[in-house]
Amino acid sequence: MSEFVTVCETGPRDGLQISKGIMPTAIKTRWIAAIAAAGVPMIEVGSFVPPKLIPQMADTAEITRRAVLLPNVTIMTLVPNLRGAQNAYAAGAHRISTPVSVSEGHSRSNINKTPAEAVEEVKRMAEWLKEQPRKVPLEAGCATAFGCSIDGRIPLANVIRVAVGLVEAGADEITLADTVGYGNPALIKETVRAVRAEIGDRLIGLHLHDTCGVGIANALAGLEEGIRKFDSSLAGLGGCPFAPGASGNIVTEDLVFMLESMGFRTGIDLAKLLKARDILREGLPNEAIHGNLARAGIPRTYACAA
Amino acid sequence: MSEFVTVCETGPRDGLQISKGIMPTAIKTRWIAAIAAAGVPMIEVGSFVPPKLIPQMADTAEITRRAVLLPNVTIMTLVPNLRGAQNAYAAGAHRISTPVSVSEGHSRSNINKTPAEAVEEVKRMAEWLKEQPRKVPLEAGCATAFGCSIDGRIPLANVIRVAVGLVEAGADEITLADTVGYGNPALIKETVRAVRAEIGDRLIGLHLHDTCGVGIANALAGLEEGIRKFDSSLAGLGGCPFAPGASGNIVTEDLVFMLESMGFRTGIDLAKLLKARDILREGLPNEAIHGNLARAGIPRTYACAA
Repeated sequence: MSEFVTVCETGPRDGLQISKGIMPTAIKTRWIAAIAAAGVPMIEVGSFVPPKLIPQMADTAEITRRAVLLPNVTIMTLVPNLRGAQNAYAAGAHRISTPVSVSEGHSRSNINKTPAEAVEEVKRMAEWLKEQPRKVPLEAGCATAFGCSIDGRIPLANVIRVAVGLVEAGADEITLADTVGYGNPALIKETVRAVRAEIGDRLIGLHLHDTCGVGIANALAGLEEGIRKFDSSLAGLGGCPFAPGASGNIVTEDLVFMLESMGFRTGIDLAKLLKARDILREGLPNEAIHGNLARAGIPRTYACAA
Repeated sequence: MSEFVTVCETGPRDGLQISKGIMPTAIKTRWIAAIAAAGVPMIEVGSFVPPKLIPQMADTAEITRRAVLLPNVTIMTLVPNLRGAQNAYAAGAHRISTPVSVSEGHSRSNINKTPAEAVEEVKRMAEWLKEQPRKVPLEAGCATAFGCSIDGRIPLANVIRVAVGLVEAGADEITLADTVGYGNPALIKETVRAVRAEIGDRLIGLHLHDTCGVGIANALAGLEEGIRKFDSSLAGLGGCPFAPGASGNIVTEDLVFMLESMGFRTGIDLAKLLKARDILREGLPNEAIHGNLARAGIPRTYACAA
């Protein structure tokens, strides 16, 4: 039996939140259902942020309530604070994610808090969630862990400090996020090793962007360091607020192709996944979409891992 | 001092040979000069094939004669047979490359010869070149080494047989080529190891295509196995004759970003390299071009290896 790698589709959250148009709720619901039906085991379906700031996410409560009815898929929702976590819990989210910027400049510009203050908020969320009857894991992301468009290079010590702080605050699992996509395979490896040395298996995932064209290589670097959970978005939907025109998250289809070709098991039917691009195109006809595999078609040598 | 990795720009050959339009000779000459001026140490500038078959390469003799006058760059020309090698030598090429398909189906469909017969032709080239006063290295490529659109999966034993045959035929250096871009990092590593076990340091390079979106990850896999020479094309120019719409070679700009970010030295000025895209666009205004780094711009964290 091949080793399983969890692909977490974040297009409905990280992709849509920066899209120019707003995907209608009905189409978004169908899109998420199609991704789940392709076998994707985890989907980040939206974020509980003020609709005035990100109108694309205004329907997150409704989207979450519908998505959790889908079979065989873990539905995750992003929240920025305790209030968001309470909303996500009420909507039935199976899992909650929350980002904390390692970069001081990014943290202040985004939420007007220091990283340490943001970790305090995660502690409040974790404490509240632990008091609830339903067990909802809290995944905390160390954002801008591999570089920041404001602060530039990020000292490894700062990444470790935030990751350790998040574990001490009660987060169940930690993800390292290349929020702006400045990372490279050597930096990914060095950072994963250093963080794992401090928090062990609490480090579970990588959230990667393909800003500079090396996102899938960064995933390979993480894979080689033992990471077995990756965020990606269908058709590479999304972008980077600091680099107009930049690509978004790593492309789910290309990631799945790599993983399965290498003998890892993802549970994902690649042909069905490619079909889900049609619904994305229907819902956001003017959005730039990416993905080399989709252009070429699945090669005849492709075979799923067993 | 960082370790040097040779990036061989193959856009003027592998990219242009499949382009819909024909780049005018004057613009091609300027384009090659701009790539060389950016510090690219090796450029494959064309191929000596019948103009009736590939009209885009009809000016290869003239292009080669001009390119060899550029300073600090090795000019390579592809040839399919002894006659081509003689033409390339006469035009002043510093280095000659020749492909031999590992796949029987691809070899027969391309040149109506078996791989063994193609190796015999390489022997004739090598013998002739060794008799000439000017030393011109012969680089032989094992084409379709990682899969074939006609024959599907390629047994490793066949790759080894062709690689060993090419060394015995007198080729100076061997490259493994993912001609149709079906490879994955695990296959790259397995193949590089197995071929190196037979021919040692004669294996020098990888020629990769980004058909399935994992080309840069494949380059990383090769790098980790000690490969220090990669073919790539500016803006990912090119495609795959068997997959209309597919991407071409791995993108030179993205590859250089990865290598330099990881601490390898390429000698390439990334900003100047990105500028060379303008001439490509001028020469082939209707051609699809690629490259994530070009869309995003060079990140502020980027620093060349010293």
